[in-house]
Amino acid sequence: MGVAVSLTESGRTTSQDGSGVSVTKPGEAGLKGLADYLASDMQACNRVIVERMQSSVPLIPQLAAHLVAAGGKRLRPLLTLAAARLCGYDTRDGQLRHVEIAACVEFIHTATLLHDDVVDESQLRRGLASANAIFGNKASVLVGDFLFARSFQILTADASLDVMAILSAASATLAEGEVMQMTTQNDLSTSVEQYLQVIYGKTAALFAAACEAGAVIGEASAEQREALRVYGANLGMAFQLVDDALDYAADQAVLGKEVGDDFREGKVTLPVLAAYEHGSEEDRVFWRRVIEDSEQQDGDLAAALERIAATDAIGITLARAEDYAAKAREALDLFRQSELKDLLRDTASYSVSRER
Amino acid sequence: MGVAVSLTESGRTTSQDGSGVSVTKPGEAGLKGLADYLASDMQACNRVIVERMQSSVPLIPQLAAHLVAAGGKRLRPLLTLAAARLCGYDTRDGQLRHVEIAACVEFIHTATLLHDDVVDESQLRRGLASANAIFGNKASVLVGDFLFARSFQILTADASLDVMAILSAASATLAEGEVMQMTTQNDLSTSVEQYLQVIYGKTAALFAAACEAGAVIGEASAEQREALRVYGANLGMAFQLVDDALDYAADQAVLGKEVGDDFREGKVTLPVLAAYEHGSEEDRVFWRRVIEDSEQQDGDLAAALERIAATDAIGITLARAEDYAAKAREALDLFRQSELKDLLRDTASYSVSRER
Repeated sequence: MGVAVSLTESGRTTSQDGSGVSVTKPGEAGLKGLADYLASDMQACNRVIVERMQSSVPLIPQLAAHLVAAGGKRLRPLLTLAAARLCGYDTRDGQLRHVEIAACVEFIHTATLLHDDVVDESQLRRGLASANAIFGNKASVLVGDFLFARSFQILTADASLDVMAILSAASATLAEGEVMQMTTQNDLSTSVEQYLQVIYGKTAALFAAACEAGAVIGEASAEQREALRVYGANLGMAFQLVDDALDYAADQAVLGKEVGDDFREGKVTLPVLAAYEHGSEEDRVFWRRVIEDSEQQDGDLAAALERIAATDAIGITLARAEDYAAKAREALDLFRQSELKDLLRDTASYSVSRER
Repeated sequence: MGVAVSLTESGRTTSQDGSGVSVTKPGEAGLKGLADYLASDMQACNRVIVERMQSSVPLIPQLAAHLVAAGGKRLRPLLTLAAARLCGYDTRDGQLRHVEIAACVEFIHTATLLHDDVVDESQLRRGLASANAIFGNKASVLVGDFLFARSFQILTADASLDVMAILSAASATLAEGEVMQMTTQNDLSTSVEQYLQVIYGKTAALFAAACEAGAVIGEASAEQREALRVYGANLGMAFQLVDDALDYAADQAVLGKEVGDDFREGKVTLPVLAAYEHGSEEDRVFWRRVIEDSEQQDGDLAAALERIAATDAIGITLARAEDYAAKAREALDLFRQSELKDLLRDTASYSVSRER
């Protein structure tokens, strides 16, 4: 069951025009459109990623190659490239700063993924065995550190203090978000506000930084730079809310990772908070046992999915996501009409409608 | 049994003048002397460390406070402070760049320690329970990431591209050294050359960077900068060789961590390589079982210590350390005579004679 289907069931829609079934996947073309539009930049970025992962220590490029092969959406580097281009970044003189910084953003993200998978003990990532499952936790921690250090070497070579300030602050916020997530784990007294802080830190801060860094490279005005930061932050919030919904609502084969990961780890995400708040007393006894006491038995995931469906917790989560996506689209209003602007608007819609 | 005693037993001495028993701990006063000489700078550095560890996420300062309380030698930040001062860095106008960068160096080091303890599953660090033993592996990975990100925020604020290049490259080399150490673990075919590469990466590179960064802040000439880099690199090599000796030769109560950690983890360090090379065929069968096959039984550590003593493996390791320490001292020759220069020379001697 994909998220779009759940939406239809709950009477909500993620489409901009609300026209129903034919737009259950609005924006799907949008992200592909964005990737197609920036294909040449993105190819250059992939080359930089592979080049900069090289090391005289063989295990590093080996593990890196596994990550590159696993692919992923490459959404964050696309945002940097798109923001730079939207602000008119010109590469006719051969400079490719936006490509270098996009690679840097992907390195920071990949380092975080490596460490997350260690912290969460995940076995699957993007439909493949996770790096820690193949190479072990030690290698994942250390190669993550290497990628993080390498990202700062790229920033140093680029020599923009503004870009450095944006990305080093985002990296610190990212770590804070992950720590905060850890401390809210198994705690059903976590407020929605605290949950939103966690997802801002763990996801939206880097989306915002990826966009803002692109704007700086594109020599944006202060207003444009702020607009792109706001676009990225809201897009990131929408993206993470949908991620958290997909963990309870996705088709595992489409999702490419295990459904119910968050449940098994006792993560307190909005679907759980909503199901807990809107559930019966019996529901709350259930959630306290499985999330707070971590006492999970066979059949508990299925029971959780039923309770989530009964309380429309996925619908509530996706409605929030759509609010953020709408804010992301609005933030682009100050840019004049262009194909790229439309693609970025579509990407915000896609962030809500996606099934993986 | 301290290292100095082993040295006397093996007929070697670590003292500069070779005068025997009265100098079994040469340089002991040197490190304390260096710390005393730079006490005011170091106090300022400790304040910066505490300030910059603050975060709205309570667990971060909590875990950080544990690390600060555990203390440690603070050798790396001392090196940055000393190098800046040796090159004439003047703080009369109120600037304290050397203090900020020294704190940054300590953050990079602390982040590495946190991740090391996770990777090695260590229970003790500097005589106290390690952070991962108290706060768990997750918190150690994530707070390490936070400190690493924060160090780059400090660098960005300092705004010297040279210092950034030095410290971001050292951070990447550090991770490479750790990965290489992991891949040589349990492998007795590791060459001494490969072992030296590992310890350069995991330790000497950051010592070198700490010194070189201080020199840049002190507006050193190219020759002075290079001399301090060479001093730091050789000091770091000596320091790590002695660390590896202490793991087999130290008094655990003095050392402040578990003796035999490296042995239990199957780390291939010079004491083991030397004992393997110079041992009997029976010795080699023993080392292959305990290190390569990781089959360790009660009494094996004691047996390892005996085999190490019989082959003078500690003496061989410390002789190498003394060679590096001598090179470190020589590198300072181009600086004119000063109390600080003498203290840095003594620190090189201390790096070999220390018992913890």
